Amino acid sequence: MDEFSFINSIKQQTYKQSSVIKGVGDDAAVFRNTSQDTVTAVDTFVEEVHFSRGTMDPFHIGYRSLAANISDLAAMGSTPAFYLVSVVIPNNWSDEELIQLYKGMRHLASVHEMDLIGGDTVSGKEMSISITVIGFVNKGKARYRSSAKPDDILFVTGTLGDSQAGFYILNNPGSFREKEYYYAKHRMPEPRVAFAKELESLSRVALNDISDGIANEVNEISEASKVSITIYEEKLPISNSYNQFPPELQREWMLFGGEDFELVGTVSRAEWEYLKAIAEKTHTPLKEVGYVDFSKSNEHNVFGVNHYNKKKLLEKKGYTHME
Amino acid sequence: MDEFSFINSIKQQTYKQSSVIKGVGDDAAVFRNTSQDTVTAVDTFVEEVHFSRGTMDPFHIGYRSLAANISDLAAMGSTPAFYLVSVVIPNNWSDEELIQLYKGMRHLASVHEMDLIGGDTVSGKEMSISITVIGFVNKGKARYRSSAKPDDILFVTGTLGDSQAGFYILNNPGSFREKEYYYAKHRMPEPRVAFAKELESLSRVALNDISDGIANEVNEISEASKVSITIYEEKLPISNSYNQFPPELQREWMLFGGEDFELVGTVSRAEWEYLKAIAEKTHTPLKEVGYVDFSKSNEHNVFGVNHYNKKKLLEKKGYTHME
Repeated sequence: MDEFSFINSIKQQTYKQSSVIKGVGDDAAVFRNTSQDTVTAVDTFVEEVHFSRGTMDPFHIGYRSLAANISDLAAMGSTPAFYLVSVVIPNNWSDEELIQLYKGMRHLASVHEMDLIGGDTVSGKEMSISITVIGFVNKGKARYRSSAKPDDILFVTGTLGDSQAGFYILNNPGSFREKEYYYAKHRMPEPRVAFAKELESLSRVALNDISDGIANEVNEISEASKVSITIYEEKLPISNSYNQFPPELQREWMLFGGEDFELVGTVSRAEWEYLKAIAEKTHTPLKEVGYVDFSKSNEHNVFGVNHYNKKKLLEKKGYTHME
Repeated sequence: MDEFSFINSIKQQTYKQSSVIKGVGDDAAVFRNTSQDTVTAVDTFVEEVHFSRGTMDPFHIGYRSLAANISDLAAMGSTPAFYLVSVVIPNNWSDEELIQLYKGMRHLASVHEMDLIGGDTVSGKEMSISITVIGFVNKGKARYRSSAKPDDILFVTGTLGDSQAGFYILNNPGSFREKEYYYAKHRMPEPRVAFAKELESLSRVALNDISDGIANEVNEISEASKVSITIYEEKLPISNSYNQFPPELQREWMLFGGEDFELVGTVSRAEWEYLKAIAEKTHTPLKEVGYVDFSKSNEHNVFGVNHYNKKKLLEKKGYTHME
C-alpha cells in the first residue's frame, strides 16, 4: 500500500469536534477555539522498549499509546479533542497490522470524540509511534502538579499495579484468577477523562497521572509544590484478586509500576467531600491515601508508611533508609 | 546524562510567546490565544532515511528538521509559535551530539521567536526525531492548496534544486563553485515565514511548500483545487551557478528534488502586482512560472512545457508521454 492509499484509509470522512476548520489533507491542520485554553503533549513509544507484539496485538498497541497521551490531558484537567500520529514503519509490519494499530487508536478516540487531524508515516528499521494530543480546558482551569498545599489530602483514583500484573501474567503463563481483567488493564487502560474534567469546579487541586508509578508521581508533586507528602501503603487501592501475586511484586507494582494511568493528586480538606461527590458522579473509585505535611519546611520529601507503621523516605524509584 | 538532567539542559528559562501559560514541566503544556486560529502539523525524520551524520552535523539535523516543520506552517500562511520534540535515542548518539541537535533547533526557533513547550526522549535502536509545530493565523486567513482558480498565475519563491545540489556536492567531492552556498541551502534552509504571513492581506491564494519537488506540490494544488495547471520549465528559478551540475540532474532536482522549502502557489491576475509588492517588502525572490488553465474541465492535470515548447503531462514523480 502506498502512502497515499494508506492516508486515505485512515482519514476521517467527518470530524466530531466543532472547532476543526481543516483536518487531514493540507500542509497542516487548522482549528478554532477562542473560549478555552489549549493543552498539548507528545509521547513516543518504541517497539521492544515500550511495547511488544508478543504481548499485545497492534490494535492494543494503538489503543494503549493513545490512552497514555489522553491520560496526560486528563492530568491537566482538560478534555481531549485532537490527535496527530507519526509512525516509523519497518518492513516487518504488515499493512494489516498498521491498519489495526490505527483502529486501536480510533476506537479509544471515538469514546472521547477525538479527531485525527494530522500525522506522518515514514520508513525505518524500528517501529515507533509518536502521538501528539491536543485538548481544551476552560480559561485558567488547567490543573498543575505545583498546586499542593500543607494539610491537603492525598488521593488516588482506581487501583494500582494492575497493568504490571497483566503484563506479568502474559509473560508467566499459569493459573491466575481474573486473567481477562488484568489483560484489559494492561492493554486497554481507561484514562480518567470524565473525573478530570469535573475538577475544574474545585477551587484548587494538584494533579498528576500515574504513568511511572505513584512513588514517582507524588515525588513530582512534592518537588513542584515544594511540600512534603506522606503516603500510607496500606491505604493504596488494589484489586480484589491482587493478593494472588508474589508479595514482593505486589508492593513493587503498586508503588513503582507504571501505566495504570490513574490520577493522583491533593485537595484541601475543605473540598474533600466535594471531590468525593465528583468521583461518585463520574463513577470513579477514589481513595484517600495520605496527606501533605502540615508544616512548611524547606525540605520537600515523600515518605511512605508501611504496614508496620514504619515511616521511610520514598524516592522516585525506591525507599531510602533514613539515618 | 539522565533524562531529568537532559530535560533541564534543553528547558527554556523564559518563553517568548505571550500566549504560553505553562511550558515544559507538567504533564502537558498550556497556551491561550483567543483571537486567532491555531495551525498544527507533525513530521518525523529517521537517521539514514531522511538525514545522515555523514553529510550533516547534529546541529544541522536539528535545524533542518525544524525548518521542514516551520515550512508547513508557512504553507498555511500562519506564524510559528511553538514546537514539541520527541527523539528516539540510540546508544551511538553521544550526549554532546544530542545537545547540538537541540541547539540547531533552538537556533532556528529563536529566529522565529518559537518556544519549545514539550517533548519526549526515549531509548531505541534507530535515531528518529518527531517534531510537532503549532502556529497561529488570523481567523479565516489560513491558506489552502484547494484555493486555485482558472486563469490564476502560478508563482514560486526563491530558487529550486539547491538543496539537492548541496547534497550532491557533499556526496561527490570535487571542484564546484559556491559550495558553501549549496551546503547552506541543504543544511540550513530558510522557510518563507515572513512572506507567508503577509499573504493574509490577499483576498485569495493557493499555497503549498516545496518539500517533495515542485511537480509533486503543483499536482497537489491541482487535485485539491480541481483545476489543471501548466508550468513553464524555462521560467523555473535557479541559482546563478546552477548550470555547473550535470544537465539531467539540474532538471531532476528542479522539478522533483525536495527540501528547498520554497513556496509555490497561485494567485489571481488582479492581485499579482500586490503579491509582487509583498515579495519586495519581505525581500523574497518571486517568479511567475505558469498558470491555471482558463477552462473548467473535468480533468485536473499538471502540464510541463519544456525548452523546446513541448507540453507534456507532468505527474508527481515524472513526465508521462501524452497519447
